[in-house]
Amino acid sequence: MKKIKNKEDLNKFVDKIKSQDGYKEPIAWAVARVEKSFLDEEKTLCANYAVINYKENYASFAVLFWALQECGIKVDTKGSEFVAKLDRDVVDKVLEIFDFLVDEVDGNSHKNLQNFMTIDEILSEDGEDNFCATFIFEDKAPKSVESVYLKLYLLSLGKVALRSLNLDGAFGVLPNVAWDLQSKPIELEWLKENEIWLKMSGAYPTILSVDKFPRFLSHIVPNDSVRVLDSSKVRLGAHLADGTTIMPGASYVNFNAGTTGKAMVEGRISSSVIVGDGSDIGGGASILGVLSGTSGNAISVGKRALLGANSVTGIPLGDDCIVDAGIAILEGTKIYISSVEAKKLQEANKEFKFDKEIFKGLELCNLNSLHFRQDSQSGKITASYNKKTVKLNENLH
Amino acid sequence: MKKIKNKEDLNKFVDKIKSQDGYKEPIAWAVARVEKSFLDEEKTLCANYAVINYKENYASFAVLFWALQECGIKVDTKGSEFVAKLDRDVVDKVLEIFDFLVDEVDGNSHKNLQNFMTIDEILSEDGEDNFCATFIFEDKAPKSVESVYLKLYLLSLGKVALRSLNLDGAFGVLPNVAWDLQSKPIELEWLKENEIWLKMSGAYPTILSVDKFPRFLSHIVPNDSVRVLDSSKVRLGAHLADGTTIMPGASYVNFNAGTTGKAMVEGRISSSVIVGDGSDIGGGASILGVLSGTSGNAISVGKRALLGANSVTGIPLGDDCIVDAGIAILEGTKIYISSVEAKKLQEANKEFKFDKEIFKGLELCNLNSLHFRQDSQSGKITASYNKKTVKLNENLH
Amino acid sequence: MKKIKNKEDLNKFVDKIKSQDGYKEPIAWAVARVEKSFLDEEKTLCANYAVINYKENYASFAVLFWALQECGIKVDTKGSEFVAKLDRDVVDKVLEIFDFLVDEVDGNSHKNLQNFMTIDEILSEDGEDNFCATFIFEDKAPKSVESVYLKLYLLSLGKVALRSLNLDGAFGVLPNVAWDLQSKPIELEWLKENEIWLKMSGAYPTILSVDKFPRFLSHIVPNDSVRVLDSSKVRLGAHLADGTTIMPGASYVNFNAGTTGKAMVEGRISSSVIVGDGSDIGGGASILGVLSGTSGNAISVGKRALLGANSVTGIPLGDDCIVDAGIAILEGTKIYISSVEAKKLQEANKEFKFDKEIFKGLELCNLNSLHFRQDSQSGKITASYNKKTVKLNENLH
Repeated sequence: MKKIKNKEDLNKFVDKIKSQDGYKEPIAWAVARVEKSFLDEEKTLCANYAVINYKENYASFAVLFWALQECGIKVDTKGSEFVAKLDRDVVDKVLEIFDFLVDEVDGNSHKNLQNFMTIDEILSEDGEDNFCATFIFEDKAPKSVESVYLKLYLLSLGKVALRSLNLDGAFGVLPNVAWDLQSKPIELEWLKENEIWLKMSGAYPTILSVDKFPRFLSHIVPNDSVRVLDSSKVRLGAHLADGTTIMPGASYVNFNAGTTGKAMVEGRISSSVIVGDGSDIGGGASILGVLSGTSGNAISVGKRALLGANSVTGIPLGDDCIVDAGIAILEGTKIYISSVEAKKLQEANKEFKFDKEIFKGLELCNLNSLHFRQDSQSGKITASYNKKTVKLNENLH
Repeated sequence: MKKIKNKEDLNKFVDKIKSQDGYKEPIAWAVARVEKSFLDEEKTLCANYAVINYKENYASFAVLFWALQECGIKVDTKGSEFVAKLDRDVVDKVLEIFDFLVDEVDGNSHKNLQNFMTIDEILSEDGEDNFCATFIFEDKAPKSVESVYLKLYLLSLGKVALRSLNLDGAFGVLPNVAWDLQSKPIELEWLKENEIWLKMSGAYPTILSVDKFPRFLSHIVPNDSVRVLDSSKVRLGAHLADGTTIMPGASYVNFNAGTTGKAMVEGRISSSVIVGDGSDIGGGASILGVLSGTSGNAISVGKRALLGANSVTGIPLGDDCIVDAGIAILEGTKIYISSVEAKKLQEANKEFKFDKEIFKGLELCNLNSLHFRQDSQSGKITASYNKKTVKLNENLH
Repeated sequence: MKKIKNKEDLNKFVDKIKSQDGYKEPIAWAVARVEKSFLDEEKTLCANYAVINYKENYASFAVLFWALQECGIKVDTKGSEFVAKLDRDVVDKVLEIFDFLVDEVDGNSHKNLQNFMTIDEILSEDGEDNFCATFIFEDKAPKSVESVYLKLYLLSLGKVALRSLNLDGAFGVLPNVAWDLQSKPIELEWLKENEIWLKMSGAYPTILSVDKFPRFLSHIVPNDSVRVLDSSKVRLGAHLADGTTIMPGASYVNFNAGTTGKAMVEGRISSSVIVGDGSDIGGGASILGVLSGTSGNAISVGKRALLGANSVTGIPLGDDCIVDAGIAILEGTKIYISSVEAKKLQEANKEFKFDKEIFKGLELCNLNSLHFRQDSQSGKITASYNKKTVKLNENLH
């Protein structure tokens, strides 16, 4: 093979690979360091990605595809996903092709090349570490720890929209492990087997959590305007948009859930819940999720919402809505709307028919400018027109 | 003394010890590595047990009893508990007796012997470490850090039922300490005395908590189906049955409290509270405890209960009960039951007399199939018959 | 200069410094170890103080003032604050003056001198570390990371009362950083730049939080009777009085907020909220803060208050008040007070006029002995006279 000397050579080389039978471009691909089980060295417990490719960088993919092939690994592009072990030979092959680019590499450019160069360096020093390449060809139910992690990264990094990926069966694929201080997974069985020695020698590891999912902050570098006051509160797979603050009280953001704009979050954003820009989720406020709580409707909360302290929201809300502190608006909650308020609400919700006085929560899904209250003298839950615009405290951002 | 060569020799030897005056078998016993105060080397701050014996393994106990005696330590079996320091001489004596079994030792067998062998190894290398044996002869108010810890382990490991042990005065016995990253206790006074050096040299330790109790996950290896997303949420002395998940939002499980079957826990399980199999404790739900909240009745929640998000439960509940999101059912809450619902409830609660329309919470203690709601138009709190069976999401387990 | 041999010499020397033009005594001053940015070595990310001086120890200040001057650093006493870098020359100058006292130094005496001696020792070994002296001359909006930290320490240590310091713009001054296991700040940008190497080598740091504020327990040694079960729950700048317990469920104490006496805290103490002695803040109870929630009134909760589980308090409360579990008392909440209860309440609130039946929450601010309830049959929120005295469980303290 002729040495690749420039971009043009590379393009020709890549075109040749792309024309091969069985070549197919993945939706997403990335290279990971994987943590293996102490009990079964074939078993992956966790994958760490630094550079994630989503519908991009197919030249690098093609070269990797070729390098694997050269080393005897045929990437099966017919399945929905493929995980290939990366050893020195594969990485060397890749670097051989990209050699002409090495001098161009700096901070933010050629991230995939940087990744391969770094792995090469690590493998030179210590062949013990485990690396792999993960390819997702179709968005079907994930089959490997590596592909679940890749999907969780895609969500957390905002490469794809929340709720847009197939995560069916992810709970079954991920092993339940103890996460130690270094955010490394340890199997509970291994801890049991080694308990006597670890305890008696004073070396029993501090376990921060036992879960199938790792923590968001163990994998994702948030943008500068994001704050997470307690790493335990956000699972990998959550997405926190710029300007999002997660306070440490009763808050929580599950995987496949999060914010799409700046938000102050002191409550629970359950799995599949999406919170819009400028919203304030008050202390202890609960937004019910699909995993337990609602009848299966994923809840979105619109822009500039205010969910009061200890309120509960069980229906999707449009923009500019308020749920007062301490009240629960569920699918079956009966809500009174006076004709005066109905008239005002009509303006903000042209399509909706306010043709009665009592509505069920489910009927009011996704409407704008609703202010839910409980009359403190009659106990009546009402919805009225919200004329205030909720504003997050700028000082806090 | 003749060398013990086999099980038969051992039995004879043990029988001889058992026939001694002053010999008595403890309810529970175990060997611990103890962490001592930096300020007073006599003072135990924390005990780590790997193998716990509850009404079992009395041959090992007898040998230990004898070994201590041989080394001049007379175990006082008349008190409710006894803590003996274990040095190399004691451990060597024990191992002398069990020498014939050493080759048989593997993974799960002869755990006490493994424990002694491990201590022997550690003491050979570094005599600095501290080990003790703790014996509990009677379940009275604990007098030592070592016996409090042993009782907390018995509860957490499910060797005894929750609420079945005497823990009176445990708060007074346990010192309040700072727990560092390695889950080791540091006295606050020591931190104050060394603050200048620690701060100026950049070596001030990260403190994860300041408490009398350690964290559950620093001492207990949970079963594979248990998840605890934030180690701060569960104190040692809590019991988490198989299939229990503790989410990181507003949840919490105190010592001497927990679950007896699979459960999704996003709320607070206060001290002395027991939650039954198949129950769902919603986000921010509070179950009041005996330490503060109720008038002293320990609350049990039955099987297949659903405590809605931000609900409060101040009375014990039978099976198949629901408390709707956001409402509080306390001892004094007046609850309306219509005659139609009373009839249905009668089926599920044969013994109870539904002879009126308004009940106080306290009167409805432990009944089955109650569904507590607040009418959102009248503010009236009602109880009706719950016909739904609460089912935990199987995907999550 | 003549060597200072005794207290008398020192006093004379100090008097001479004090008489200088431009000399001015700061309200507060202290010496810090500072953590600098990896990206810009001039930028301070965090300051660690061990000894804090508030309107005290001006002899030590004067000597430091002189030492800085001798080393060419003129302390600008006209601005509201000044931060001076401390190098070996400065520290040596200070120690030269205090040499006669060195033999007197022990545990609790001459803390400032101990601090300088410790820095001297550290700088001798490794000149790399960064130290500074921070002087606050006027309580204006803080301009530096060092002065914000000094103010947060003053609040947390109880040297000044909560809400008594000017913290305007503190959010803007503090950088948002990732806090690692050693409680050291890391810039998010640095993490991004080094992500590939850190992830691929398995050395990506465990991040405990991303926030502008550090955790209380990373800087403050609490008194022996204080418990904080989860370090993430309390920001530096909070004050926890003796006998305060912060449980790990839904609780939280923000900066410039806290307790003034013993308290059981299982709920949220938002920024600027002060809770009085003997109070019990129930599980998930929310006290609204000035940063988001109230119309700007800082809320105080008086002595012996009981805020029930999942209650919400949006108005200041006097002594002996109870807010029942699950209810929200906000500024606009309409509250019914019967004439019978009004008569009893009048005794406890001589100044107040109970001249009607329905009050808004805001009208009842700061009154004593109010018991807020919701009638569970009519939904009516009422206030009545609280005759019970709330008592914290002594066993827990």
